[in-house]
Amino acid sequence: MSSSPLKLIDCDVHVCPRSADEIKAYLEQPWKHRFSIRKNTYYKNPNPPVDKMPPGGGAAGSDPDFLRSQLIDRMGIYRAIIMTQAHLTADHDPDYSSAVATAYNSWLADTWLGEYNADGVFKGSIVINHRDPAAAAREIDRWADHPHFVQIQMDTGAMAPFGQRQYHPIFEAAERNGLPVAIHPGGESIGVNKPVWIGYPAHYTEYYTGFSFAVQSHLVSLLTEGIFERFPKLKIVIAEGGVTWLPALLWRLDQEWKGLRSEVPWVMKAPSEYVRDHVRFTTQPLERPEKDEDLIAVLDMMDAHNLLMFSSDYPESDFVSPEASLPRLPAEWDSKMLFENARQWYSL
Amino acid sequence: MSSSPLKLIDCDVHVCPRSADEIKAYLEQPWKHRFSIRKNTYYKNPNPPVDKMPPGGGAAGSDPDFLRSQLIDRMGIYRAIIMTQAHLTADHDPDYSSAVATAYNSWLADTWLGEYNADGVFKGSIVINHRDPAAAAREIDRWADHPHFVQIQMDTGAMAPFGQRQYHPIFEAAERNGLPVAIHPGGESIGVNKPVWIGYPAHYTEYYTGFSFAVQSHLVSLLTEGIFERFPKLKIVIAEGGVTWLPALLWRLDQEWKGLRSEVPWVMKAPSEYVRDHVRFTTQPLERPEKDEDLIAVLDMMDAHNLLMFSSDYPESDFVSPEASLPRLPAEWDSKMLFENARQWYSL
Repeated sequence: MSSSPLKLIDCDVHVCPRSADEIKAYLEQPWKHRFSIRKNTYYKNPNPPVDKMPPGGGAAGSDPDFLRSQLIDRMGIYRAIIMTQAHLTADHDPDYSSAVATAYNSWLADTWLGEYNADGVFKGSIVINHRDPAAAAREIDRWADHPHFVQIQMDTGAMAPFGQRQYHPIFEAAERNGLPVAIHPGGESIGVNKPVWIGYPAHYTEYYTGFSFAVQSHLVSLLTEGIFERFPKLKIVIAEGGVTWLPALLWRLDQEWKGLRSEVPWVMKAPSEYVRDHVRFTTQPLERPEKDEDLIAVLDMMDAHNLLMFSSDYPESDFVSPEASLPRLPAEWDSKMLFENARQWYSL
Repeated sequence: MSSSPLKLIDCDVHVCPRSADEIKAYLEQPWKHRFSIRKNTYYKNPNPPVDKMPPGGGAAGSDPDFLRSQLIDRMGIYRAIIMTQAHLTADHDPDYSSAVATAYNSWLADTWLGEYNADGVFKGSIVINHRDPAAAAREIDRWADHPHFVQIQMDTGAMAPFGQRQYHPIFEAAERNGLPVAIHPGGESIGVNKPVWIGYPAHYTEYYTGFSFAVQSHLVSLLTEGIFERFPKLKIVIAEGGVTWLPALLWRLDQEWKGLRSEVPWVMKAPSEYVRDHVRFTTQPLERPEKDEDLIAVLDMMDAHNLLMFSSDYPESDFVSPEASLPRLPAEWDSKMLFENARQWYSL
């Protein structure tokens, strides 16, 4: 079955409907009509890998059989965790965004996570509109008992960083249902959402580099607002935001916390300690310096073998295999990063 | 004179007037009146180091004699480069901001850089309102021949990242006059300025951590917009934004450039190469992990001995001495980071 000797869980696989009509079918009026006339515009990779296009037509990631053969079977993947690219939150109307979130989840449950998924290889993320936290919490509760939804997905595109109190109902629902919350790039800098950094990026190169800023800003907010004291069982997954920025960020934040903790007394221990207990990171896109030893040195500084979970970001990346996308790692890291960390985090 | 055996240039020293009236005296109407009724509100360190308060009263950094004794003489500083904390750009009225910039520069020229500066130890930064680039260019030309103004200062607080074309007149003026441009935190997330990252930070701990994002966003914009091809003699100084994030950022950006360079054909070489030739970084606040060897390993990855220039950030930090604020560095790094890199960059 597998040409890879490694036992693998892939924590970031993107699928999409064959056409927008598949989502539209799940919408009631007036959303159905609005869905037809609105385009969820967002930055698209100008150079999508052509080898990921299904031979029978349709967008990359829209053909389950092709994805199975190209990714699951070829790599010997035990579980693939689906992230939805709904880019919901940039729309001006939060009711519309919530309706589209429900439609996406219903579509995913009926297709990739439905009868087709008899072997249970696909696991889903409950996509939510975080701009209406109460509606998002209801959406989480609606799907929490489904056997194949294993986490909640929040797009980084937002009006405010996620530590702020309006988001509490979401984390409450996540904790109540024992589901990790994945923070994944999407929808930042467009519509009602704030830019990923000072002002708006002009090019995709700049925008994609900014993904790491998007996830870092939310992570710093979660840490400084004391979210993990308020929700002590909460698990966060930082997906597709890069990895090697973590040591520099936590050195800085631990340092500021030491000097300024009287300002944030609800942060009871060094921010890096909360990260160790509450946050995991997906590997793709891993920064790849010229020298692998530089990367491994930085990974070692961040305790990467405990914090990283393998992801392919299929079909967005030029991903070929774990062996090609990762440097040669210390042998004892492999099983943890490729399999065991995710198995434990998601109870797979 | 000096208790330190090191030859030092301090690239980030903050001074301020004894009272706002000193600046007001340089303003014409209607700005003089508006200056009286407006407060330039901005985040202030909630725990300023008390030992930096002048014994004779006034704000930290307002007493030249005290600063000389506490910083210049005690540390044996050869040149101290002054950064102004005018926090100009958040105001809604760009004419007002430009007027205040001119007033600050005039005040600095008459006081710290005037007769008092007979030994030439103090060097100034021409503060500009980057929201009116033509006015900023005129301000640069006005002071460029002054013997003690050695650079231009742009606050990171902005409506757009600095690579974008509206800022060209500023870099043109910088290049024409052979003056480095320092990008220094200030004014982000307030007034008309965009937040430093997704949404507005709630606490100073979060905000200060965000300084590194502010400078990174501008740096990425400069690099992806091809500013150093357009202005091949331009020199940039990244001040008070931290340091150790650089390897991760450039690994990411070089990687994206390799894959997406067709989108930004004006970027002729890897972004990291432009950094090596056109950008320097001030040391304070240097991230200090638990293990000095981790810091030194990351500094080595970023070629720090060529890119870093010592700064105290007096009087904002708990800075005591270079020996206390930096780890024990390889001996051959010391003279470059503490003195030679800045001497060359500023032709001191």
